[in-house]
Amino acid sequence: MSTSFSELSYADAGFAFTSFLSILGTTMVKLFGEESLAAEYLGEMRDSGGFCVILVSEEGAGSELGRTETTYAQKGENLVLNGDKYFSTNTDAAGFLLIAARSADDPSAHSVVLVPRGTKGIDIVKRWDMHGMRGSGTYQVRLRDCAVPAHHALAGNGLRILEAGLNASRTLIAATAIGVSRRIRDLSMEYAAGKQVKGARLIDNAVFASKLGQIEMLIDVMRNQCLAAAAHYDALLASENPAASLYRTGAMRPALAAKMYCGQAGWSVATIGSEMFGGLGYTNEHLITKLVRDLRYVGLVEGGGDVVRDLIFSRGDLLCLRRS
Amino acid sequence: MSTSFSELSYADAGFAFTSFLSILGTTMVKLFGEESLAAEYLGEMRDSGGFCVILVSEEGAGSELGRTETTYAQKGENLVLNGDKYFSTNTDAAGFLLIAARSADDPSAHSVVLVPRGTKGIDIVKRWDMHGMRGSGTYQVRLRDCAVPAHHALAGNGLRILEAGLNASRTLIAATAIGVSRRIRDLSMEYAAGKQVKGARLIDNAVFASKLGQIEMLIDVMRNQCLAAAAHYDALLASENPAASLYRTGAMRPALAAKMYCGQAGWSVATIGSEMFGGLGYTNEHLITKLVRDLRYVGLVEGGGDVVRDLIFSRGDLLCLRRS
Amino acid sequence: MSTSFSELSYADAGFAFTSFLSILGTTMVKLFGEESLAAEYLGEMRDSGGFCVILVSEEGAGSELGRTETTYAQKGENLVLNGDKYFSTNTDAAGFLLIAARSADDPSAHSVVLVPRGTKGIDIVKRWDMHGMRGSGTYQVRLRDCAVPAHHALAGNGLRILEAGLNASRTLIAATAIGVSRRIRDLSMEYAAGKQVKGARLIDNAVFASKLGQIEMLIDVMRNQCLAAAAHYDALLASENPAASLYRTGAMRPALAAKMYCGQAGWSVATIGSEMFGGLGYTNEHLITKLVRDLRYVGLVEGGGDVVRDLIFSRGDLLCLRRS
Amino acid sequence: MSTSFSELSYADAGFAFTSFLSILGTTMVKLFGEESLAAEYLGEMRDSGGFCVILVSEEGAGSELGRTETTYAQKGENLVLNGDKYFSTNTDAAGFLLIAARSADDPSAHSVVLVPRGTKGIDIVKRWDMHGMRGSGTYQVRLRDCAVPAHHALAGNGLRILEAGLNASRTLIAATAIGVSRRIRDLSMEYAAGKQVKGARLIDNAVFASKLGQIEMLIDVMRNQCLAAAAHYDALLASENPAASLYRTGAMRPALAAKMYCGQAGWSVATIGSEMFGGLGYTNEHLITKLVRDLRYVGLVEGGGDVVRDLIFSRGDLLCLRRS
Repeated sequence: MSTSFSELSYADAGFAFTSFLSILGTTMVKLFGEESLAAEYLGEMRDSGGFCVILVSEEGAGSELGRTETTYAQKGENLVLNGDKYFSTNTDAAGFLLIAARSADDPSAHSVVLVPRGTKGIDIVKRWDMHGMRGSGTYQVRLRDCAVPAHHALAGNGLRILEAGLNASRTLIAATAIGVSRRIRDLSMEYAAGKQVKGARLIDNAVFASKLGQIEMLIDVMRNQCLAAAAHYDALLASENPAASLYRTGAMRPALAAKMYCGQAGWSVATIGSEMFGGLGYTNEHLITKLVRDLRYVGLVEGGGDVVRDLIFSRGDLLCLRRS
Repeated sequence: MSTSFSELSYADAGFAFTSFLSILGTTMVKLFGEESLAAEYLGEMRDSGGFCVILVSEEGAGSELGRTETTYAQKGENLVLNGDKYFSTNTDAAGFLLIAARSADDPSAHSVVLVPRGTKGIDIVKRWDMHGMRGSGTYQVRLRDCAVPAHHALAGNGLRILEAGLNASRTLIAATAIGVSRRIRDLSMEYAAGKQVKGARLIDNAVFASKLGQIEMLIDVMRNQCLAAAAHYDALLASENPAASLYRTGAMRPALAAKMYCGQAGWSVATIGSEMFGGLGYTNEHLITKLVRDLRYVGLVEGGGDVVRDLIFSRGDLLCLRRS
Repeated sequence: MSTSFSELSYADAGFAFTSFLSILGTTMVKLFGEESLAAEYLGEMRDSGGFCVILVSEEGAGSELGRTETTYAQKGENLVLNGDKYFSTNTDAAGFLLIAARSADDPSAHSVVLVPRGTKGIDIVKRWDMHGMRGSGTYQVRLRDCAVPAHHALAGNGLRILEAGLNASRTLIAATAIGVSRRIRDLSMEYAAGKQVKGARLIDNAVFASKLGQIEMLIDVMRNQCLAAAAHYDALLASENPAASLYRTGAMRPALAAKMYCGQAGWSVATIGSEMFGGLGYTNEHLITKLVRDLRYVGLVEGGGDVVRDLIFSRGDLLCLRRS
Repeated sequence: MSTSFSELSYADAGFAFTSFLSILGTTMVKLFGEESLAAEYLGEMRDSGGFCVILVSEEGAGSELGRTETTYAQKGENLVLNGDKYFSTNTDAAGFLLIAARSADDPSAHSVVLVPRGTKGIDIVKRWDMHGMRGSGTYQVRLRDCAVPAHHALAGNGLRILEAGLNASRTLIAATAIGVSRRIRDLSMEYAAGKQVKGARLIDNAVFASKLGQIEMLIDVMRNQCLAAAAHYDALLASENPAASLYRTGAMRPALAAKMYCGQAGWSVATIGSEMFGGLGYTNEHLITKLVRDLRYVGLVEGGGDVVRDLIFSRGDLLCLRRS
């Protein structure tokens, strides 16, 4: 999957992201949802297509899951949700939403609740004017007294479920960088084959070769890291009790490292690439500008560098050294 | 001047660039133009305001001045220019243009010719849709049989005159990075004062302090390099025969180093800055996105990193080591 | 193997390198040597232990295999070798040497010849005083009329055989960086647990956490790249005709990328690490100084960054784009 | 002075540092010492030569001046000092030492006390085996009941006096990087003039030119930053009341930025340089290895990157933004 995702991202990273993002939600429903819930919503998706999305980020909390202010309250047989989500990808077109919320009664209790898109009280406040990844949509969403049956809550601590689920989207976002970087490489090769510099073709210039060698190396390393993260995740999904395994594992180091590394390495490819085309590379009329805008996404979303570095530092492996 | 330019760039780098760029042309006319030419065109500018610009870059030649294909031919008492200029800043609004061209008869003879904007045969082909610096305009220009009196050619080898003149614009472009970086710093401080992260204000976070300390250091170094380049240039202008001094010196190391360094350091500030604001920093609705776009200019225009590195390497100081 | 090698490098990279380096030579003999040659020399090694080494680099040629000046000449049933090898690891203690040489009669014919250490005419000119990796020995070697039976030449173009063989040593050198980086990480954690900074333990400092998160990410990425390179190589060795497969493949991208990436990422870990221990980290009395010295090796030997970037650029994958 | 210091560092950074470091102590004595004290000790130095040094760092406190554990106690007309200093440059050969200490009675009272080298109770515990800068000596020193007349204490808060004095040594350390970087540049040019790579001289190789252009730029920027820091400091010294001006100013931004910047830029030159010479650059037999070792000093001593970044962030300029 990681490979075909890189191919799609080669064409358009926003479209690739839109196409694959639902896997995050469907996996969460399949692993942590009641059987009947999964049957109904995943069945419909299988039969009729469509998207599902998760709504996590809030204006105040940023990337800190524990500070979610959206609440759910038990009212009779329903859960009623209230809150405001700041950035959510593709919400408008989704069939159902998975919403991170905390209990109105017990602030320490977190849950993830499945809410059909048509539920009363869901209001798309605005579509953000994003810098890049414009093949996907990013929305600000208001939830006012959205009621769903109580069994729409996934089983388990919401923070833990989200951490488990984010492994998939972190790896997907990381893999975006591979496709876009390959596109930058090919665009550079094509340009250099036709461009004269100092009396020779740019493609025969030693400095150009040095840059392309560096880019090619970075692409190889990004690819192997994403494949390793995907293999790690797939192994958990193939274990006897994938829900329990994922739940216990939480944020996986290879997925975190893939997200962080591809953010950095991809940005380095983008920086080299955007210097390749002279003044043309500074216009909106050249593809490189769009590629650079799309690539910036990888390092910024779902936890920028600081957040991910902190997650890696706080994971079990280092922690055991830390306590000793 | 460098200081007030940084202040203007703090507000808008494109506007700052537009406001100061004419100094490049006026200096060239003053130093290398006939007295009567200078009196006429600079006098009009002094009295009525307005801009002047230079037209150098061409589609095939890129930043290689020696490959200019625009020509001038002597016809009676006139010079007649023909050619196509690819990227030229603010041409549409200018009062007169300084055009780099080679002799139609002798390809090794280069000149810079003053052409009033209203001259017949100047056609603005398009205004480029630029990624940033949108407070200035960038144009593609066609010149067909533009005739001006022969004394409109500046005195001396055009390549040398251009190299001399570019010292001023390189320092100006470099100084753009100071103003924009200061704006990024202040925007970050303002944001951090109001933002909570992990139970404390972001401004009291050690990682934030570390980033801002690095940014503040880079700003100080950029400022001192630009001031040194400006002082170096001003010293030449204040010498007994500034035209001869500049002509002999050509591209000055401090100006080249300022342009290259501010491109790199400014881009590093932009990269740190754009990670500061979370998802908001990836929208076109937040100022940081505009600042990052503007800052990219410094490293890309009037010779990207490769070109300037090569110029520095090829200057006299290293060359004498090279020959020994 | 890559994993146990990283463990050994954790303790001492020079010793690890010495212990594993023979695999480069034994693989070459096994794949490209006559059956009787392999039986004799590998059999002895299996039974009695010992090392074997390759001698490639020369003072003039540097890392350019094609410029080898050491020659072999057919004299009766023998090959007679003459030349000077500049840097060769562990030669003094080796049982046999594999020597890169060109034909004295045909400068375009390259070969690799097995020469027992005891052969007359091998002179260890000096042991280099190396900056790091002092658990291995690096020698300058003179070869004067060293005669061996003609079947001691491996089959095939020597340049191609070397490129094939270097895949193994490139991956091993790369993996060194994993072990040393892990050691730097653990040393930092241990130090930070006991060190007070600004009224709190360093290990609870956010900037420290950020650095360790970055290091941990880099280790994960280096590990996955080396594992991918090793898997790639192992797959070729497990193919039906490994000699032909390797010969056809030559330098493999994952091994080149591993070598280059671990050189860069490892050096970044070393730079962060050496800043961790204050003044103590600048003394020869602290382990970090030795670790930093050892780590520098990865980026410098068997082709520095420029050479490897060029190899990656010149490989088939990019070349097909290049010709199109 | 900065210029001649760069010249000396070109030859040997350790010797340069040793030669100039006394200026730190003499300036402190001249500005903050009693007239008679200055007359006696500076007069002797002027007449007979010699060194003076400051002793600040301690094992526990590291670079945090406020955590100094060495104490001074008033006993009759004397001050009696006790404590252990961890790293102190050139102490063994000094004529007098300036020792940072806190009051035995009031832990918040800090002072700097002049102690002649011959005073009873000064014990050189060891000379550290330093990684580089071996032209200077670094010592661990024990102070046991060292008694000096009370007027040997400089006037004012010791922390503030030290901060003021460190401006001079920070700029000197920074300037070391200029000299060593220039040496690396020249060594590279010399090597490249004689080295063949791919059928041409290395000096005519475009990748080499690109690296040297970058190094030359960094040298220019380091030089201008050090000159700006020195000019800033000299201006304070030339003011009407230099002691009061310096005391009020404390750590100066240009000196902090010079120290931090030259540490980073110099290290980047060293990293490029050490890749230049192939395997030879990894031996202790080539000068580059010594230059790289010396250059590492700049980024590590008298406050590594983290400490200086924090100082810059905590200075007044940013702080006023911070409080608003």
